[in-house]
Amino acid sequence: MQALSLSLASRIVDLALEKARAIDCKPLTVAVLDTGGHLLVLKREDGSGILRPQIAIAKAWGVLGMGLGGRTLAERATAAPAFFSALGDISGGRMAPVPGGVLLRDGGGNLLGSVGISGDTSDTDETCAVFAIESSGLKADPG
Amino acid sequence: MQALSLSLASRIVDLALEKARAIDCKPLTVAVLDTGGHLLVLKREDGSGILRPQIAIAKAWGVLGMGLGGRTLAERATAAPAFFSALGDISGGRMAPVPGGVLLRDGGGNLLGSVGISGDTSDTDETCAVFAIESSGLKADPG
Amino acid sequence: MQALSLSLASRIVDLALEKARAIDCKPLTVAVLDTGGHLLVLKREDGSGILRPQIAIAKAWGVLGMGLGGRTLAERATAAPAFFSALGDISGGRMAPVPGGVLLRDGGGNLLGSVGISGDTSDTDETCAVFAIESSGLKADPG
Amino acid sequence: MQALSLSLASRIVDLALEKARAIDCKPLTVAVLDTGGHLLVLKREDGSGILRPQIAIAKAWGVLGMGLGGRTLAERATAAPAFFSALGDISGGRMAPVPGGVLLRDGGGNLLGSVGISGDTSDTDETCAVFAIESSGLKADPG
Repeated sequence: MQALSLSLASRIVDLALEKARAIDCKPLTVAVLDTGGHLLVLKREDGSGILRPQIAIAKAWGVLGMGLGGRTLAERATAAPAFFSALGDISGGRMAPVPGGVLLRDGGGNLLGSVGISGDTSDTDETCAVFAIESSGLKADPG
Repeated sequence: MQALSLSLASRIVDLALEKARAIDCKPLTVAVLDTGGHLLVLKREDGSGILRPQIAIAKAWGVLGMGLGGRTLAERATAAPAFFSALGDISGGRMAPVPGGVLLRDGGGNLLGSVGISGDTSDTDETCAVFAIESSGLKADPG
Repeated sequence: MQALSLSLASRIVDLALEKARAIDCKPLTVAVLDTGGHLLVLKREDGSGILRPQIAIAKAWGVLGMGLGGRTLAERATAAPAFFSALGDISGGRMAPVPGGVLLRDGGGNLLGSVGISGDTSDTDETCAVFAIESSGLKADPG
Repeated sequence: MQALSLSLASRIVDLALEKARAIDCKPLTVAVLDTGGHLLVLKREDGSGILRPQIAIAKAWGVLGMGLGGRTLAERATAAPAFFSALGDISGGRMAPVPGGVLLRDGGGNLLGSVGISGDTSDTDETCAVFAIESSGLKADPG
């Protein structure tokens, strides 16, 4: 298992922000976490709201916590709201079960960490995350 | 009332993981708590998500907290979501009201502790817990 | 970087408890965490106090949090009590800066996780942790 | 008052890490916050401990919280430990009163934000922060 380097994590964040500017989306915050759920890199664009870092981190943390991408978590949260409300408490508020939290894997499918983006619609956030991960040569697992 | 020994609790965890491998389910985390809700044994399989220990413990803690198995808690949470949301706060995030939290009793019905399993579907988690408890000669009360 | 398997983590816990019984120390709780600070295995011996799981986990978590063994953390906490009081708050109560928290490395010095033991004196707790790690063929870094 | 842009905040983080490698210090985590105490950029070097993000943020947050640099906070914490213990609670664990938290000002002395660094000794952490701020054309106020 290859560890996710700061250099690669930084590249993913910068690629996500390049995409965000190319498609002219709202100001984003982008976080990359290692497999243990610990922050490697975060950047918040000018004008991105003050809760965006926590939301981006929670999108990235939740997918690691459950081992499932944000799109799957969102479907399950709709189907089982009481359990996901409990998961919010169990995790100490570290889960945001919506698209925009994407698992990061190497070519062999091994988990390397996750990306979380917040600022525009969840679908657009996810688009930027998937673009950045795949442009960096890794595999995106949005769930 | 017989107390639940480390030796017996360990046996239950190992039986649950043997069952998990026999039916080829997703990587599980298995926790056994004593009657006071305190952890005796926990094992997390390779690849089981980083929130799984807290979820397994919360499944096991919740059934002790209310004196009802996880299946009953899940039904009640569906019927009374606001109350279970309050219970999440009241318990400090220690309740996961879903199947996979199972009360552990001796032959006379005395409470010895509980088992919580997380990683696959709640039904499969519960199957592994019930199998392990009954294979160890105790009685499973899944609610 | 090799990940720490459940099988190896379980072996370390069992070796620590064998040592504990061989030297007849007080009932111990032993925890092994992965590099992200997440629980892999915990066992609490019969008669080990109900706060021991949290203490053992906090010993193991603190050494990962700072990248320094528990013995070094204890010295620093004595020299800089205000900072370590702040670290208790910053970490949300996840640090126990005393001997008995030991970093776990492979032969090449790569971090694999940590062991935390609580129940007897901190020195004895550390003795059992170091014994277990080295008997399993890994390197103990008690700080 | 000029707001601190993502571009300038990123430049400060990168300059701090260049300095860290030039003087060969331990793996650092560097955070830059805006005047509201909200994260703009964070980078954690390979091998920097898992609590380092929270510590770097807390160093940067504490200097904004009190309007005093980390060096002054450290002196006051030594003189008034009970008060700083209370501040830890009051702030919800967001203060690390040690050198390495540095206020960031423009040429006219206006506050623009803060930098927090953790990983080596507090003095070395502060050296990297001051270097980065001054190399970027701003004024460092380490307290």
